[in-house]
Amino acid sequence: MRDLSLSGVIKPEVRGLTAYTLKHFDAGVKLDQNENPYELPTDLKREVAERVLRRPWGRYPDFVPAAMLKTLSKFTGWPEDGILVGNGSNELIQASLNVTLGPGRQLAVMQPTFTLYKMMAITLQAQVKEIFLDAENLTLDAGKLIEASRTADVVVACSPNNPTGNLIERAALEALLKNAKGMVLVDEAYHEFSGQTALPLLAGHRNLVVLRTFSKAMAMAGLRFGYMMAHPEIAREVYKSKLPYNVNIFTLAAAEVVIERHAVLTEGIAALVRERGRVFAELRRRPAVRVFPSKANFILMKTHRPARELFDGLYGQGVLVRDVSSYPLLDRCLRVSIGTPEENDRFLAALDRVLESK
Amino acid sequence: MRDLSLSGVIKPEVRGLTAYTLKHFDAGVKLDQNENPYELPTDLKREVAERVLRRPWGRYPDFVPAAMLKTLSKFTGWPEDGILVGNGSNELIQASLNVTLGPGRQLAVMQPTFTLYKMMAITLQAQVKEIFLDAENLTLDAGKLIEASRTADVVVACSPNNPTGNLIERAALEALLKNAKGMVLVDEAYHEFSGQTALPLLAGHRNLVVLRTFSKAMAMAGLRFGYMMAHPEIAREVYKSKLPYNVNIFTLAAAEVVIERHAVLTEGIAALVRERGRVFAELRRRPAVRVFPSKANFILMKTHRPARELFDGLYGQGVLVRDVSSYPLLDRCLRVSIGTPEENDRFLAALDRVLESK
Repeated sequence: MRDLSLSGVIKPEVRGLTAYTLKHFDAGVKLDQNENPYELPTDLKREVAERVLRRPWGRYPDFVPAAMLKTLSKFTGWPEDGILVGNGSNELIQASLNVTLGPGRQLAVMQPTFTLYKMMAITLQAQVKEIFLDAENLTLDAGKLIEASRTADVVVACSPNNPTGNLIERAALEALLKNAKGMVLVDEAYHEFSGQTALPLLAGHRNLVVLRTFSKAMAMAGLRFGYMMAHPEIAREVYKSKLPYNVNIFTLAAAEVVIERHAVLTEGIAALVRERGRVFAELRRRPAVRVFPSKANFILMKTHRPARELFDGLYGQGVLVRDVSSYPLLDRCLRVSIGTPEENDRFLAALDRVLESK
Repeated sequence: MRDLSLSGVIKPEVRGLTAYTLKHFDAGVKLDQNENPYELPTDLKREVAERVLRRPWGRYPDFVPAAMLKTLSKFTGWPEDGILVGNGSNELIQASLNVTLGPGRQLAVMQPTFTLYKMMAITLQAQVKEIFLDAENLTLDAGKLIEASRTADVVVACSPNNPTGNLIERAALEALLKNAKGMVLVDEAYHEFSGQTALPLLAGHRNLVVLRTFSKAMAMAGLRFGYMMAHPEIAREVYKSKLPYNVNIFTLAAAEVVIERHAVLTEGIAALVRERGRVFAELRRRPAVRVFPSKANFILMKTHRPARELFDGLYGQGVLVRDVSSYPLLDRCLRVSIGTPEENDRFLAALDRVLESK
């Protein structure tokens, strides 16, 4: 057997990466992935299943999902030829970076933020310029990001930002778009909870790419759907790295029905926003907890105790949250998704028991 | 509005690429995408739908699809930690190339072959070394590919090859694996029709990556599922570029049920292999047609007429085939998927009418 040295075949930048992983935990109260706890109505799910049962599964999806692009265009007001759909928005982030980054090119991101941007850039052997949030308050000094954008080929701004929850203000985003040398990718995974979107800026900024997902507010995390909006000229280039037939017929049907009937989501989203306010106020009343303002469907919190200890204490009571203490600046931090009122109550009660236990 | 120059943001190699596209045609006899014409049984499809209706759609798929990896391990005999699943095998091809290719690195492929390998390599700014098949017979000089493999970082061998249908013989593949400097990626999209697989070579070759899809023999093109088998050490590295949650819960359920009940596919696959022989013999009887031997579920053919003319003549009779005349060496060639006996008869009759028409 030939002894293949991995160093010869895998790029050294990739070998140096730690894979993005998430250990599996079962729990009665699942507040670790920022999912929408309000499941889609059964009759809607049945309708999707029936539509798909009528279709041949052995045939590829349409090469261009024209019906879906039309639906999304009506839904967003952005033209079809500036929209791409993906197997979750992650795929479209990857395609956008694939066509723009390589050795000698630079990505600018704030830190902490969603892990994948940096991982993908490193895999592409690009440089990564990290703009750290304020170590104490985790606020963004937009001026620093704007400064970095003058030389970066791509800026990724997650807004609201995961896992901190803060928003890039509209004025800061406009300044960013005006000053950026290259592409500005705004990941709006949580925009429905924030009351803000970069969508109105698209018409005036050819360097803006807006990413959306159906995994959070749209309650379709299990089915994987996302879309991207950009100037058609940019969309045409990103398209070259998007895989053909990347969205399966079931997910296409589900997204179609969910958009048609998206009023079914309104009440749940409003409830989550209300609950975010309540959980935030509750946490702030607890002297042992430092809590950070959030415009998303999760809250970042910090205590004096090691995050793992708190995580374990909650998990022992059936409440699963995310230990984000390995992110830059987030020592002793946990991220808690907003659940139903009952789930949030169980989280708060479990937290109190853990905090009292020492 | 800032006038963003695209040349500054999109990599020049990408801008130079022509997107992989496929124009949409409706036809009664669809022989253009090498799909399995034998649809999965309705009761199987219902079972998949029922399983998925019982699951929450708002929750992410498991981070590691452990149950599916176990099922595939039993199905193939290859260990779970050497298997990755993807949103079609294309995603795993892309992930494999992402972790191995970049500027200064080289991909070797035969030509003509499946378009995406080269496109992905160019997007990654890698060099592409093309090993042309024999211009007359479209046979592979394995020695040339082996020679190229001594310096290439990755060799992709599609076997049976799309769109020519020829197989890389076992001995040639072994020699390739022994001599290759880097990774040898064998795309077995059509292996079920060939009676040959590189699977038994995996245990002895750490540089081998085998890719499989459920889009052809497995009759699931609409649902997008593929998998990769490699040494666990290689799988661990490719994993870093595979997207998290890349396979949705519906496709996972469908693949699970199709593997459990894969005997339902046996008869259809055998029929397609028989029909391939019959269609090949029929085509060979026609003096106006040059036909190439195939181990896949399609046949490549050539006439003296422009491919577009033949394509249009067939399409005018409701028979859709693939015009592959823009591929290297394939001037005046069409690729015809093997369908049901009735579909194949309709194709042959339509072909005769077109050939007689001039």
